Amino acid sequence: MPRATGVRGFLERLDRGPVIGDGGFVVALEKRGYVEAGPWTPQAVIEHPEAVKQLHREFLRAGSDVCQAFTFYASEDKLKNRGNSAGSYGVKAINQAACDIVKEVAYPEGSLVAGGVSQTPTYMNTTDKALVQAEVRKQCAVFKETGVDLMICEYYDHVEEAEWHVEAVKDFMPGVPVCASLCINEDTDVHGVPTGECGVKLARAGADVIGINCHYDPFRCIKAVKKMIKNVKAAGFDKVHFMIQPLAFMTPDASVQGFIDLPEFPFALEPRTCTRFEMQRYAREAYEAGIRYIGGCCGFEPYHIRAVSEELSAERGGYQPAGAINWGECLLMNTKPWVRARASKEYWQNLKPGTGRPHSSSFSKCDQWGITAGHELMSQHEEATGDEALKKALEFKKRMENVEIIINA
Amino acid sequence: MPRATGVRGFLERLDRGPVIGDGGFVVALEKRGYVEAGPWTPQAVIEHPEAVKQLHREFLRAGSDVCQAFTFYASEDKLKNRGNSAGSYGVKAINQAACDIVKEVAYPEGSLVAGGVSQTPTYMNTTDKALVQAEVRKQCAVFKETGVDLMICEYYDHVEEAEWHVEAVKDFMPGVPVCASLCINEDTDVHGVPTGECGVKLARAGADVIGINCHYDPFRCIKAVKKMIKNVKAAGFDKVHFMIQPLAFMTPDASVQGFIDLPEFPFALEPRTCTRFEMQRYAREAYEAGIRYIGGCCGFEPYHIRAVSEELSAERGGYQPAGAINWGECLLMNTKPWVRARASKEYWQNLKPGTGRPHSSSFSKCDQWGITAGHELMSQHEEATGDEALKKALEFKKRMENVEIIINA
Amino acid sequence: MPRATGVRGFLERLDRGPVIGDGGFVVALEKRGYVEAGPWTPQAVIEHPEAVKQLHREFLRAGSDVCQAFTFYASEDKLKNRGNSAGSYGVKAINQAACDIVKEVAYPEGSLVAGGVSQTPTYMNTTDKALVQAEVRKQCAVFKETGVDLMICEYYDHVEEAEWHVEAVKDFMPGVPVCASLCINEDTDVHGVPTGECGVKLARAGADVIGINCHYDPFRCIKAVKKMIKNVKAAGFDKVHFMIQPLAFMTPDASVQGFIDLPEFPFALEPRTCTRFEMQRYAREAYEAGIRYIGGCCGFEPYHIRAVSEELSAERGGYQPAGAINWGECLLMNTKPWVRARASKEYWQNLKPGTGRPHSSSFSKCDQWGITAGHELMSQHEEATGDEALKKALEFKKRMENVEIIINA
Amino acid sequence: MPRATGVRGFLERLDRGPVIGDGGFVVALEKRGYVEAGPWTPQAVIEHPEAVKQLHREFLRAGSDVCQAFTFYASEDKLKNRGNSAGSYGVKAINQAACDIVKEVAYPEGSLVAGGVSQTPTYMNTTDKALVQAEVRKQCAVFKETGVDLMICEYYDHVEEAEWHVEAVKDFMPGVPVCASLCINEDTDVHGVPTGECGVKLARAGADVIGINCHYDPFRCIKAVKKMIKNVKAAGFDKVHFMIQPLAFMTPDASVQGFIDLPEFPFALEPRTCTRFEMQRYAREAYEAGIRYIGGCCGFEPYHIRAVSEELSAERGGYQPAGAINWGECLLMNTKPWVRARASKEYWQNLKPGTGRPHSSSFSKCDQWGITAGHELMSQHEEATGDEALKKALEFKKRMENVEIIINA
Repeated sequence: MPRATGVRGFLERLDRGPVIGDGGFVVALEKRGYVEAGPWTPQAVIEHPEAVKQLHREFLRAGSDVCQAFTFYASEDKLKNRGNSAGSYGVKAINQAACDIVKEVAYPEGSLVAGGVSQTPTYMNTTDKALVQAEVRKQCAVFKETGVDLMICEYYDHVEEAEWHVEAVKDFMPGVPVCASLCINEDTDVHGVPTGECGVKLARAGADVIGINCHYDPFRCIKAVKKMIKNVKAAGFDKVHFMIQPLAFMTPDASVQGFIDLPEFPFALEPRTCTRFEMQRYAREAYEAGIRYIGGCCGFEPYHIRAVSEELSAERGGYQPAGAINWGECLLMNTKPWVRARASKEYWQNLKPGTGRPHSSSFSKCDQWGITAGHELMSQHEEATGDEALKKALEFKKRMENVEIIINA
Repeated sequence: MPRATGVRGFLERLDRGPVIGDGGFVVALEKRGYVEAGPWTPQAVIEHPEAVKQLHREFLRAGSDVCQAFTFYASEDKLKNRGNSAGSYGVKAINQAACDIVKEVAYPEGSLVAGGVSQTPTYMNTTDKALVQAEVRKQCAVFKETGVDLMICEYYDHVEEAEWHVEAVKDFMPGVPVCASLCINEDTDVHGVPTGECGVKLARAGADVIGINCHYDPFRCIKAVKKMIKNVKAAGFDKVHFMIQPLAFMTPDASVQGFIDLPEFPFALEPRTCTRFEMQRYAREAYEAGIRYIGGCCGFEPYHIRAVSEELSAERGGYQPAGAINWGECLLMNTKPWVRARASKEYWQNLKPGTGRPHSSSFSKCDQWGITAGHELMSQHEEATGDEALKKALEFKKRMENVEIIINA
Repeated sequence: MPRATGVRGFLERLDRGPVIGDGGFVVALEKRGYVEAGPWTPQAVIEHPEAVKQLHREFLRAGSDVCQAFTFYASEDKLKNRGNSAGSYGVKAINQAACDIVKEVAYPEGSLVAGGVSQTPTYMNTTDKALVQAEVRKQCAVFKETGVDLMICEYYDHVEEAEWHVEAVKDFMPGVPVCASLCINEDTDVHGVPTGECGVKLARAGADVIGINCHYDPFRCIKAVKKMIKNVKAAGFDKVHFMIQPLAFMTPDASVQGFIDLPEFPFALEPRTCTRFEMQRYAREAYEAGIRYIGGCCGFEPYHIRAVSEELSAERGGYQPAGAINWGECLLMNTKPWVRARASKEYWQNLKPGTGRPHSSSFSKCDQWGITAGHELMSQHEEATGDEALKKALEFKKRMENVEIIINA
Repeated sequence: MPRATGVRGFLERLDRGPVIGDGGFVVALEKRGYVEAGPWTPQAVIEHPEAVKQLHREFLRAGSDVCQAFTFYASEDKLKNRGNSAGSYGVKAINQAACDIVKEVAYPEGSLVAGGVSQTPTYMNTTDKALVQAEVRKQCAVFKETGVDLMICEYYDHVEEAEWHVEAVKDFMPGVPVCASLCINEDTDVHGVPTGECGVKLARAGADVIGINCHYDPFRCIKAVKKMIKNVKAAGFDKVHFMIQPLAFMTPDASVQGFIDLPEFPFALEPRTCTRFEMQRYAREAYEAGIRYIGGCCGFEPYHIRAVSEELSAERGGYQPAGAINWGECLLMNTKPWVRARASKEYWQNLKPGTGRPHSSSFSKCDQWGITAGHELMSQHEEATGDEALKKALEFKKRMENVEIIINA
């Protein structure tokens, strides 16, 4: 497999050229029937290891250079949140199973293995640095013991929490490269810190790779990382690399918390799904912006990562992923002549895909409740959501719908 | 598993209540990296048996009562068409592998196993009944030997070819229930035979179950099957059952050969993908129209079949598939209160999903070349498409684009 | 003015080539501030004669060969309906003022003058032929006395009422050519009579010119008239001419009573407004279908009629209307080079105009209450709509919204 | 007429409450057949005075407090530009005719009369202050002699030219209030001066009223004026008032030169036309932002100004314009019950109008040639555009279309 450079080191690989990540597991496995939407249950690694392995295999075939252990959102406090049954397994067992699975699949193929941590309910409820970092260390124990090639701290909408995580991981796992990735847009984090400045804060906290993941579409994420690059370079951090792992959903209309605010989240996002040609454009633009770690998050299916691999083939020594379509060349074998006539880059690159949805609009009205850490409705707790709590949320919803919010469109 | 009734017979199951099919394999496996678009290579059953098994497992978890061996479009003449490398395996080896795989997965779960045949290049090139039926028998040899619970003759746009296939299968595999399914719309087949009348012809040919699959969205397929039901009942065929296995893509604007004519086929159909709630509406409307075999075709992912199972739970003794979302009840465990507020049937049933695509229109301009069996460009042959042949197709395309065709919208 | 052939006779003009009508007055004058939406008050001819004259002048400049007296919906029973203040003027005074105005403007320019009658509340309430025809004669008294070049019986959604009107007018105004125009779609009238058959009924009733006006967009109206042409010709009426006066609004999604069922009627139809290039296409397609009287109805502004004139210039001896844009040639005088680069037929003919409306969908959900003559809510009466009556309508609306109606899209 | 306060002074009226402007004349009169698109010929005041008077009358009925003489873009250098036939009349004759017309109509109704100047080809070609101001004085000669209540300097995309005009007018017509209005968006003028700062520059130049007109939709213009208000107030100009006269077209996707860059300009903007309810929202938001002079520009028809008047009725002593629809109350007289059920504010305020255009997208791809004053293609000259010049523009167009420009959406 030509993409395997023989170089073990993650940072060395980034120095040499693009490193391709994998796609998000929770949304892909929910569609396959192994993860529950809402709690986004990582216990699939214990209950359905074969399904998790299969998805790792598919991303590998599509060209991923890094396989991330499926431990998303598996902090101890999150596993217990709101009646989640995952709590009975505990973070240790889940992370161990995830590491075992990913190593079994990734190492024979020459892929690197990443561990990961992400935002915690503890931050939302307490904003207490010591408590938050304790949660981080609990998550990292298995990664430290079992050994990983890199750590990804990802999915933060408050840069402050990301800084605390980076510091904790750097301290707890010395020598392991640490990536720090926020789920914010091209403007600011949820507390109003400008995106470019967030990049600098993460560099100061010690992150080796800095960027954006989840919450927004590829093109908005590129805009956000570009701002980080500009500020981080201006601040003199010359060795820092940049990363991007966006949604595979188009979200021009998403507000401060990204696709979560869209009314279609999480069960009706289909019409927003990116095509493989949009992914090729994404890969090209990200690479040209100077981003070297290029992967995906929620919504990415193996064929999306494959499109990234196809686009960056020249930059990876001519490597072609399994199932490459080469701008539709395979269509020359189709039985219909008008389909064979579509076998060209020009055709697919210029196509604006019809939606087939004459009753749908292109933009949606976001939920913009304007509440964050500290608001009663945002507090996280272990018991399941009862009728009373739901009623409060619905009342708040009704109140918010009477507030006219102008979307920038 | 409550849906397993203990009844072995396919037709007896249909008499008792809804029988849920599975989804299409070629499109799903293309996205996972195991099938090539264009030739839609069924040799995946030999080259990647684990990937095929995994998809069978997922549909089973989602509630399928019938698992169809993955032998789509695997007639001997098709395998050799236009430079397809599958020809070296041959129909016998492919069908045997497909049967072995499906039986291994389906039988332990109490699911039925279907064999299948579909339209042949031989019909397109010769319209010679004897030659066409010879191709059918070649395909059925393995099914007959290994034993299947039912045969599905599917994906015909000329009712005439479907009749020939049904007759051949009934004759070759006596005692096996035969389904006959066309890929036509609510108006006529490609030769102009009205859809209702097509149903009667299939009944006369001996089909036990009659219906529509592929090429159009669920709601257009329901309209088409309704016309078949009306005519078939009027013609006195009281015991015939009806089936439907539509696309999971919205195609209000598709012309005579369905989604193949849409400019987005096959690589940019994402915005048209049905949501699970559209699938629940589909299942309900199909059932209420009197259709008893309800499944899916291209574009169906496991979660689409799961939505069908959820909707028809009461009709199947309360059976709930793995991963049922129950109109979003699982969202009550989400961390954001505005997402928890979406945990209701009313919310999802009424949502018109935004497309996130301000540069896309809802309808596309179809390729409508108006050519069919007999036209030079439609003839199928073994060698790969060369430059000269492609040039001819592109010239024809250019000519067709200057012909103004009014779409009924 | 080259378009004036010197021939006085309306039917002789139709025999020679296309005759261009004018546009609808009620919608255009409502926007200018002289007509009230809802009652669509024709008393503007008495209260604001100058505004009515100006609109006649503009349509004439745009190329109209026929000017219709502005007496739309001015039957005695309609003028009194639901608290309308027009009742105090009476049909005689209104029609006399309308005739005086149109003759003053039209005759010096060589244009023909048309009188008109349309559907009556009396038909809706009684379906009594004698009463309905008495209303017609009341309307025609002024036209008979003052003299008109032709009579237009228009805007019927029941062909039966149109037949009664044609008979009455033919009988009351012998020698005057009579046009009969329904406001139905390409399928049937509101009582289910197929559109083609409606044409035959009107021919049998004695109409000289038969066609469609209002309620649907140009392209759906062309489809409807084509069906009339086919049936009327097949029935042997060789001398009958055909007419079309459609909306200037795109209505692919309108149901049985056309744009009135659309939720945007009558105050938010702007995004549906046809461009002048769509009007040129309309004129060409109508002419090629064999339609000779080509005009407009609601939504037509003078520039829409001008576009029809431009398109049919060759067929009218090279006549060019005032203000002709000649596919944008005038843009060559623009200050911006990219605007000058738009001065071509190819540019405008191929443009699909963007909507600028990312929160709008292309199709709307129609009101489809499924009630017609005979239903309590459809009965017309003189007193204004009170709270009780409105409440009943709103309750019915609520009931209808829970009935799922599938639109053919 | 209650809106006439008896106060003659324009600035005093602004101190007391909202002053409503009129709509744009060139686009409205082009549709009626009296103005040519491209050169936007103001000679209509000489050739068709009755048509111009009628439009003034309609805006007055709709509630305009200010009537602007129709002298748009009538500087001497512009009248001669690119083969325009208006040059033979000359600016003096045109402005005199325009003043005579507007005074005859406006004064009997108590409306104020405005003269106007706008951007000049001389600025584009020379950026020579003395030459530009000489053009301004030529235009103002008639206004000074005949007397006007206010002067409007409007439609500048370079704030520098606007400052020069304001200075020249203040100097030439002492004592006359001067409005200064740019046609720029919420970001910057064409030279990159931030919009808020542009406001300060205009205040320093002596403008009494400052704001935005043309080029963008009402909601983008409000955003732009808000930025001006903020900066102008911060700079201590306490007595300055603010104005807004936007397009009546929705332009979320327009780039630096507004709707001129949209591919639909100027002949296919119909789907973007604002509804009267969008205009009511516009009037309310503009008033709440502190804007006191609220009118319209291109695309405004009398019913749009009427909607502004309706919305601000309470703020103008309860004044209701002729033809007020009062959120559809007039529909209570309609014959159809489902239309009567639409007679409410809630219905119209919440309606998202369907476009009826399944082949249109909501956003368009703008021409973004990125050229301005100084570029060869931007130079203005008297002779008509010849083949050679057009060819150059088309070649440039082709080149620009291969440059991928990412629209912020």
